[in-house]
Amino acid sequence: MNWEIHDKKYNLKNVQKYETLFTLANGYRGIRGYNELSSFDNRGNFVAGIFDKSNAQVKEIVNLPDPLEFKIYSEDEIITLDSTEILKYDRYLNMKEATLNLETELKTPKGKIINIKSKRFVSRFDEHLMMIKYEITPINFDGKLTIQNTINSNITNSKFDPINKSKHYKTDEIKDLENGLYLQVKTNDSKSIISQWTGLYSENIKNRKFYDLETLVEEVYEIYVKKSRTYKIQKNCLIHTSRNSKTPKKNILNDIKLYKNSSFEEEFKKHIKEMQKIWKKIDITIDGDDKAQTGLRFNLFHLISCAYQKDPTVSIGAKGLHGEGYKGHIFWDTEIFMLPFFTYTYPEIARSLLLYRFNTLKGAKENAKNNGYNGAQFPWESADIGLEETPKWGIDYLGNPVRIWTGDEEFHISSDIALAYWQYFKATNDKEFMENYGYEIFIETTKFWESRLTHNEDKDYYEIKKVIGPDEFHEHVDNNFYTNYLAKWNIKKCCEIIEKYKIESPKKYEDLIKKTNISEKNINNWKNIYKKIFLSSKNDIIEQFEGYFNLKDYKIKKYDENEMPLWPENIELDKLNQTQLIKQPDVIMLLLILGEEFEEEIKRKNYEYYEKRTMHKSSLSPSMYSIMGLKIGDTHNAYNYFIKTIMTDIQDNQKNTALGLHAASTGGSWQSIVYGFGGFSIDKNNIPNFNPWIPKKWKSLNYKINWQNNVLNINITENTIIINSEREIEIKIKNKSHKLKKGTNKFYLN
Amino acid sequence: MNWEIHDKKYNLKNVQKYETLFTLANGYRGIRGYNELSSFDNRGNFVAGIFDKSNAQVKEIVNLPDPLEFKIYSEDEIITLDSTEILKYDRYLNMKEATLNLETELKTPKGKIINIKSKRFVSRFDEHLMMIKYEITPINFDGKLTIQNTINSNITNSKFDPINKSKHYKTDEIKDLENGLYLQVKTNDSKSIISQWTGLYSENIKNRKFYDLETLVEEVYEIYVKKSRTYKIQKNCLIHTSRNSKTPKKNILNDIKLYKNSSFEEEFKKHIKEMQKIWKKIDITIDGDDKAQTGLRFNLFHLISCAYQKDPTVSIGAKGLHGEGYKGHIFWDTEIFMLPFFTYTYPEIARSLLLYRFNTLKGAKENAKNNGYNGAQFPWESADIGLEETPKWGIDYLGNPVRIWTGDEEFHISSDIALAYWQYFKATNDKEFMENYGYEIFIETTKFWESRLTHNEDKDYYEIKKVIGPDEFHEHVDNNFYTNYLAKWNIKKCCEIIEKYKIESPKKYEDLIKKTNISEKNINNWKNIYKKIFLSSKNDIIEQFEGYFNLKDYKIKKYDENEMPLWPENIELDKLNQTQLIKQPDVIMLLLILGEEFEEEIKRKNYEYYEKRTMHKSSLSPSMYSIMGLKIGDTHNAYNYFIKTIMTDIQDNQKNTALGLHAASTGGSWQSIVYGFGGFSIDKNNIPNFNPWIPKKWKSLNYKINWQNNVLNINITENTIIINSEREIEIKIKNKSHKLKKGTNKFYLN
Repeated sequence: MNWEIHDKKYNLKNVQKYETLFTLANGYRGIRGYNELSSFDNRGNFVAGIFDKSNAQVKEIVNLPDPLEFKIYSEDEIITLDSTEILKYDRYLNMKEATLNLETELKTPKGKIINIKSKRFVSRFDEHLMMIKYEITPINFDGKLTIQNTINSNITNSKFDPINKSKHYKTDEIKDLENGLYLQVKTNDSKSIISQWTGLYSENIKNRKFYDLETLVEEVYEIYVKKSRTYKIQKNCLIHTSRNSKTPKKNILNDIKLYKNSSFEEEFKKHIKEMQKIWKKIDITIDGDDKAQTGLRFNLFHLISCAYQKDPTVSIGAKGLHGEGYKGHIFWDTEIFMLPFFTYTYPEIARSLLLYRFNTLKGAKENAKNNGYNGAQFPWESADIGLEETPKWGIDYLGNPVRIWTGDEEFHISSDIALAYWQYFKATNDKEFMENYGYEIFIETTKFWESRLTHNEDKDYYEIKKVIGPDEFHEHVDNNFYTNYLAKWNIKKCCEIIEKYKIESPKKYEDLIKKTNISEKNINNWKNIYKKIFLSSKNDIIEQFEGYFNLKDYKIKKYDENEMPLWPENIELDKLNQTQLIKQPDVIMLLLILGEEFEEEIKRKNYEYYEKRTMHKSSLSPSMYSIMGLKIGDTHNAYNYFIKTIMTDIQDNQKNTALGLHAASTGGSWQSIVYGFGGFSIDKNNIPNFNPWIPKKWKSLNYKINWQNNVLNINITENTIIINSEREIEIKIKNKSHKLKKGTNKFYLN
Repeated sequence: MNWEIHDKKYNLKNVQKYETLFTLANGYRGIRGYNELSSFDNRGNFVAGIFDKSNAQVKEIVNLPDPLEFKIYSEDEIITLDSTEILKYDRYLNMKEATLNLETELKTPKGKIINIKSKRFVSRFDEHLMMIKYEITPINFDGKLTIQNTINSNITNSKFDPINKSKHYKTDEIKDLENGLYLQVKTNDSKSIISQWTGLYSENIKNRKFYDLETLVEEVYEIYVKKSRTYKIQKNCLIHTSRNSKTPKKNILNDIKLYKNSSFEEEFKKHIKEMQKIWKKIDITIDGDDKAQTGLRFNLFHLISCAYQKDPTVSIGAKGLHGEGYKGHIFWDTEIFMLPFFTYTYPEIARSLLLYRFNTLKGAKENAKNNGYNGAQFPWESADIGLEETPKWGIDYLGNPVRIWTGDEEFHISSDIALAYWQYFKATNDKEFMENYGYEIFIETTKFWESRLTHNEDKDYYEIKKVIGPDEFHEHVDNNFYTNYLAKWNIKKCCEIIEKYKIESPKKYEDLIKKTNISEKNINNWKNIYKKIFLSSKNDIIEQFEGYFNLKDYKIKKYDENEMPLWPENIELDKLNQTQLIKQPDVIMLLLILGEEFEEEIKRKNYEYYEKRTMHKSSLSPSMYSIMGLKIGDTHNAYNYFIKTIMTDIQDNQKNTALGLHAASTGGSWQSIVYGFGGFSIDKNNIPNFNPWIPKKWKSLNYKINWQNNVLNINITENTIIINSEREIEIKIKNKSHKLKKGTNKFYLN
């Protein structure tokens, strides 16, 4: 149970939201939950890494031709949800099996009643394969149905923002492959080839006709139906691109043969087997709270759907593979919000995601160079090759252009990436990874910070002026604490690890400094610099940036029906930068991601201060307050924030789920449960520590942590924690050391 | 008053019906009343004479790229009737001005209320021009609207019969003409070029973007709107084709300049002036019966909309320029049902329509040759060049192929055409027309009949075996009375007129017989033949075909809610050919179109016999019974049949108005009123005779007849008939002779 997300009432208002919630993805590709029976859609078909600019402001993930179009006609009536009376309707995502299901019964204007069931999966066994099974039952008539199967290459990006629309490809080839339809397109700038095929299999369909309609390729069949009988149709879809093969068309032709004699059921079995493996690694159970259980699984399901272990040149966009929001770009969201989930449950995927940054290092170096800096400046928004892709301009509600500054000023991304490398290394002990990729990332980001820091002669410290921290209400600020602290950490950790490397592997160290073109002199300079980076606080309250405490102070007092903060009265929305109100945690973020470096008292005081001033205008926000709440003992708020986090998309808290998944929030959900309720952390000495707390109504919480290639299975009840370990290791429970033996270990919490 | 047809409730069931009712056409082109705010449509854009076969079974009128698409977005919400709450809705055809109007107010899911008005006309001044005026008023918000203007070349024929779909063209050129969008296509077989352009004019729109999307060309604009203000946008559309010019693109470019500085209002004025001229010629008023008045005007309006005086190579399809029904083909409907309206109100158009047959004589000769006959066999279904275009096969409701025989056996079309030529000549005295075209038509059709007739040696008469008469329930019948009688009339009239011509213009006569390759010997043979054509009847009841009286006899006793006949009980629908039930008048048709050749007693007896056996399964049927009813004094039924006729499309009596206008029925409406209630006929001696009867509730009936270039304005009340004549002529009132003086003449009827 608790594996399904249902939409039981077809409502035009929610069509696009459910397209996002019902997206099926396997990391390689994502296809939005377009409802073939609806006439309203913002359908989306994406392949990870296929970006193109064309006439758009910046590179976008390309919305590819759609292979899902499948129309049913009864005589001259088209069967759609919008042109019939809906007698029954249930559309649902089954997360256990990763399927999208429909069960509906419709009555046409002419009185014909037809029952339609369908099940769709994007294969986890063969990432190029999607299959759909239709079951069509005429309830009260004999007669003829006509089935129209289509690949539609009239798809553009930004359909609902037509002034910014782009069609990123040209139709390249249309072919009748009897059985099935072949359509190939080529992207405009990047010249990627995308080959797609779809074909129908059924004993019932006949009189096929093929149509090449320039930007549509179609086949039409007839079915002569008898009342109450059920007619099954299987639809297979394939996609290959020039990103993964030099011969996408040939691959398609081979695959067609491969799947020609394979039934939906056979391929579904292979897919399900892969899903079982995945859930075995990632599932978390909450006993006693169905809403939390289903909601949490929703987040785990979609997060794992975005990841593709086999391709280290792609990462996860802020909206997953679930929509065009943020143009498919990759932000710090991946490293800071999503990556911990992968690091501790699926380290192979974490490794692949981190390699995306290594593989885009060239772009990051070019960014630094373009801005007059050294080393690697990772882009605030990244597409395929690591160049800065943040749009420079947006438009306000009056149509006036608004300069977007994040791509110019939100520098912390570079140390966020270094930190993620370090956390992966701590969790996996993957030395080969550090040697081949990690050290270089640390050195290039350190070089960047070295060039970005400026020396204040008066006060003899280093500072970083004119930045944007995680809180984007405040632009052009000086010495943002988060940015400065992480820059310092980045440089310091770089010095530490390469000095240690020098001792452990002097020969390889020589190769490294040669490759990165640095010398002992550089390292010595870095050691001098990081100690002098400016950091300010006042009575243990960390000042978010220089001068923040002087800003007009507002505290949040009122909340909406979803317990989200309401703007204080008399606030001027265009002058938020003159207030202490913040969009999302900034100081608190730092206290979380480098928690081992701060005392609990500091965390508590800052939580209390900033929580009252945080508007949660980012989906990244509530989960972090949930975790920090639990760390400092504010358990009531923690549960609320947790529910807000896991419900971000299901309840459409941010009112933009239509545009895609809040992927960071899915990672935040995992962090809330594991770091928050599960109380898992790594202490200063790299020892796992468990300090859990679970709400009264939860009978138990069960999660897994892969710690240095040892899967710990943790079961928490109100009074006990039971940990299954694959080998002996040292851990802590509530900061007290214990030795785990291989197998089951039980501890009492009180 | 009584000039408007309204749709006051948007209902998906009726969308396609109203597209037909709201078609705007000017003879040159027709564009279905596609509602730009609806997501459901079977839009249609036709140019008379543009036919193409491609993968279709036979040549079809081509559904061309659509220039009407016009989408309004408010932020990310698309404004459609299907995705909003409809607060106000009134869409109406104004027949006086030939405009399609919309007034609606919609509330979006996000609560924005927007009022939209539009007015569209297809110019009668310049047949290439269509203009639309939009007035958009945000009722409760300030903000941004986005307007998307499109030419869509994804249009196919048979959209709702996808197994028989055809896309008859390829997109040939897309161009940004700033201002406006250019799209050119080329038909597949006929290689016709169709050039279209659309552009927007408004002070309010800005930030234009252009999109070439392969099969869509679009421009997108923004409007920054203030609450309660009205924003006007004018949309101009142009179409030129290679049928009317060698340089359609150049014509478009010239026209753009021409209309660049012209406002909607200016062009509308020119259009209205033409409409006034038209209505002056064709309008009929019925005082005291709003339903009849509006319904009748609806028929006159759409019939005149189909006609195009300037192009004698096109005619009017059975579905007008209003839909794809019957593939745009031309049937006997034009000559027998529609032509009288034009002959007596707009003889220039009648002449042009008749010339279409002369201009397709080559095809008709080829048909005869292909079937082993001589002369001209006009096709049962005709497209652009007169070849037989009747599909050979249809499909029954079980998907079994059914042979369609009308193209092989419905021969009467050839003499129907000859008869129409003759009636035009009688009404106009247009001798030049007969000399240049008419005699040739008579000779070639006579040659055809000569070869089609077979001599029965036993009985020494000529017969026509294996035919279909007007009643299509009975196929492969022998000696259909209608067919035989008209063949006889055709040959006889041919002999008479050319012998007269020989005497009047011996030189021209010589040219004629040389051109048509006939001799005195032929003419003598014809005179022998026609006298011996077999015709059968029994006690004054004419036998529809040989053996008809031996068939199983059913009489119709029950009627549906629209007073249309219900099938007699126990009837077997697949054995109708074994019964005396008929689809539509057959004998009665003949008694009407050659009324002067039959006594009233014969008409009455046959009306009484056949009316009880007529199922009216053709829209051609009720009007004929209406007229005959009046001629023989059955006034009650006459009014019912008249109302059925004028309401054929408005009430969708035949359940297929969606597919196009019942053009024959529009002609039948005119005949019902003028020949029926107006009592107008031409007697044996070519004298107009008026024998009117009007229903009690009609205060008066007023119509016009152009008789030999003299417009008679006839006003009928219960007791009087007032006729205004432009010159002195002889007429009859109730079969009694009178001399009309120039000006007003009043007669008492009782």
